[in-house]
Amino acid sequence: MSVIRTAEVIAVGSELLGWTRLDTNSLFIAEQLARLGIELKAKTVVGDDRHRIETLFKRALERVDLVVFTGGLGPTDDDLTREAVAGALGLELVENDDLLDQIRRRFERRGLAMPEVNRKQALVPRGAEPLPNPNGSAPGVRLEVEGRLVVLLPGPPRELQPMLLELCGPGGAITARVGPERLHRASVFTTGLGESQVEMLVQPIYSTWRDGPAPIETTILASPGQVELHLTVRSSDGAAAGARLAQAIEHLTAALGPSVFSTDGRRLPEVVLTRLRERSLTIAAAESCTGGLLLERLTSVPGSSVSVAGGVVAYSDALKRNLLGVDAVLIDAHGAVSEPVAAAMVDGARVRVGADVGVAITGVAGPDGGTPAKPVGTVVIAVAAPGQPLSVRTYRFNGDREMVRMQAVQMALDRVRLALVA
Amino acid sequence: MSVIRTAEVIAVGSELLGWTRLDTNSLFIAEQLARLGIELKAKTVVGDDRHRIETLFKRALERVDLVVFTGGLGPTDDDLTREAVAGALGLELVENDDLLDQIRRRFERRGLAMPEVNRKQALVPRGAEPLPNPNGSAPGVRLEVEGRLVVLLPGPPRELQPMLLELCGPGGAITARVGPERLHRASVFTTGLGESQVEMLVQPIYSTWRDGPAPIETTILASPGQVELHLTVRSSDGAAAGARLAQAIEHLTAALGPSVFSTDGRRLPEVVLTRLRERSLTIAAAESCTGGLLLERLTSVPGSSVSVAGGVVAYSDALKRNLLGVDAVLIDAHGAVSEPVAAAMVDGARVRVGADVGVAITGVAGPDGGTPAKPVGTVVIAVAAPGQPLSVRTYRFNGDREMVRMQAVQMALDRVRLALVA
Repeated sequence: MSVIRTAEVIAVGSELLGWTRLDTNSLFIAEQLARLGIELKAKTVVGDDRHRIETLFKRALERVDLVVFTGGLGPTDDDLTREAVAGALGLELVENDDLLDQIRRRFERRGLAMPEVNRKQALVPRGAEPLPNPNGSAPGVRLEVEGRLVVLLPGPPRELQPMLLELCGPGGAITARVGPERLHRASVFTTGLGESQVEMLVQPIYSTWRDGPAPIETTILASPGQVELHLTVRSSDGAAAGARLAQAIEHLTAALGPSVFSTDGRRLPEVVLTRLRERSLTIAAAESCTGGLLLERLTSVPGSSVSVAGGVVAYSDALKRNLLGVDAVLIDAHGAVSEPVAAAMVDGARVRVGADVGVAITGVAGPDGGTPAKPVGTVVIAVAAPGQPLSVRTYRFNGDREMVRMQAVQMALDRVRLALVA
Repeated sequence: MSVIRTAEVIAVGSELLGWTRLDTNSLFIAEQLARLGIELKAKTVVGDDRHRIETLFKRALERVDLVVFTGGLGPTDDDLTREAVAGALGLELVENDDLLDQIRRRFERRGLAMPEVNRKQALVPRGAEPLPNPNGSAPGVRLEVEGRLVVLLPGPPRELQPMLLELCGPGGAITARVGPERLHRASVFTTGLGESQVEMLVQPIYSTWRDGPAPIETTILASPGQVELHLTVRSSDGAAAGARLAQAIEHLTAALGPSVFSTDGRRLPEVVLTRLRERSLTIAAAESCTGGLLLERLTSVPGSSVSVAGGVVAYSDALKRNLLGVDAVLIDAHGAVSEPVAAAMVDGARVRVGADVGVAITGVAGPDGGTPAKPVGTVVIAVAAPGQPLSVRTYRFNGDREMVRMQAVQMALDRVRLALVA
């Protein structure tokens, strides 16, 4: 049996060829295989077409050490993965008594008789090993083909994921076949800098890591208000790789300064909530153009109720006055999108909600409402925190309504984070 | 030249084989091709590996009428799509003077000299047509191979999309090669029913549409709090197909009743906002466990500021008292997650925010905070609308924190929608 270094994924299902569904399983599979040092060489989505599945499978066997199928293991006539794999290898499909028994009992536990159509799911190519599926009626299949490993997994993620974790876990059938190398990873998340600014600052650093016996690969991912650096190194020496990555992270954070908010994979709302919890502080928000997005992101984190008091979504000027106590004179004199109004909003949020830290956002998210003086993308953010002077700043974000809102929230959260550093 | 009926998509780029990025272009491509009646037979992601790209391309040419490549057209050594396609066909790459000129001018417009490396982007396989790229420096390529059409498009969606729309638009190079059949579509969006309930109600209806000369295909898509039915029919008679679909939609809506909220693709927040606008009503929300998600979804719709006054995210009991005027006695007697408190919250939101319609959500989103009497997933929703009795109901949603929050918001929006029907 040869060592597994390369893999292909074949996702089976005509529904994955439309315009509504993506094969997201392949991300999970790529990640699990990468951890074991296995490189994904290609992934293909194919419809419920036995001949095509067979052809693809034969080609994949010529090129890689491991072929992972997802989907097409259900009980209906459209489910053809089993048949195609057996057909391509010239193997007979035989009924596995244990599997049949398991499938039957699965139905019985729900007080049902097994429909005759499900009998098909107990078929495995002769010589193959069935893989138990604790979350569904479609068992998986594992088989060896001239030193290559072939794995058939069901399509639903909640069925596939535990089965793959078993195969890739300690003592799993895939783990048993890989070499000593593993992929080690680290990440640096930043905000407040654009992708090209980050690239400019770190390119001279990471470009020196590409050579040598264990090169570090660096990938840059950008989303509105966030740039992520993902580092990977392939090594059979876990301790050395860990030390290498730790040093790399140190160099990157030194170059990027306070724009780095996380080196442990935590997102910005989690970082802010941790800081609040560590200091036993609560937070309140007053949101205008972001319409609840900041509070939504904070409260989406489990356990956030300890630190998040709540807030006001004050879309209308009347609401800014009534619920936040913003003086109508301020709004008349400076407009709702202005630094004095943001300052009054943050005061109102902190006092009326009764929280230690306050954050306020008022702006023009678009597509309408822009003026020459305050075009779409203009956003004022105010932050008040204990022992800190009130801080109010005006930003100009690019992009559409969604982009402006996302960047505004990310910036506001970051401003809160920085106010909690001192 | 033969008619184009089938296609394959090959996405080139090693970055698409990791665990962070999906090839989302293929959804857009599938949709545009489907409109023209072209069936996508397979899609593959392959790394920056010339030999593999060549092999895949040759196989695709044997199987389909149209091959669409995305990515790998940049100026660097990793960009290999041009070379692989020319190599597979035994064609020489020749520099196209017009393209070189366009690329040069593109740089000049930004006050830059064209880097020598970008010269490569002016290469096209001999006999191929370049495709202008208005949004980037990588031109596309179109070529005929023994009656088959091959199109090379750049990877960034904002470059690819207009180029594909041109090819698939009136008089476009793909449109010119398809038959008279087009794909006609319609959809029905429902909420408040589970996927299996919807399936049970509509299966007897749509199963009769599968036969006959122009069968209607039905796809069911479920997300938390929403089940969508997507109908497609392939026909060369647009008027007849439209009439057929209109009748189908009528049958489905009759069977599904008031759970249908949209037959024109609009999402629930848009439907609610339209109804509010039609009646010149404003809305206010009081959210507890959903933490701003309802307001966020409403305000994410452009133009929502006309109808959304705002609201309060009252995570803490203190806030429910201070900002919404909920009587502390009510909270003590019934708990924060209770029908009397939800009723008081909706009153407070309506009166204090000053809006015509009010909606309040209080519940246990989890993972903590559940009790035997009020387990995780318990959510109380109150809706107040002009001319309607105050309506308060308790729900029990399944799933994790995110699922509970999404279902609660969807249900609350639907309750508002139904309150505005009368």
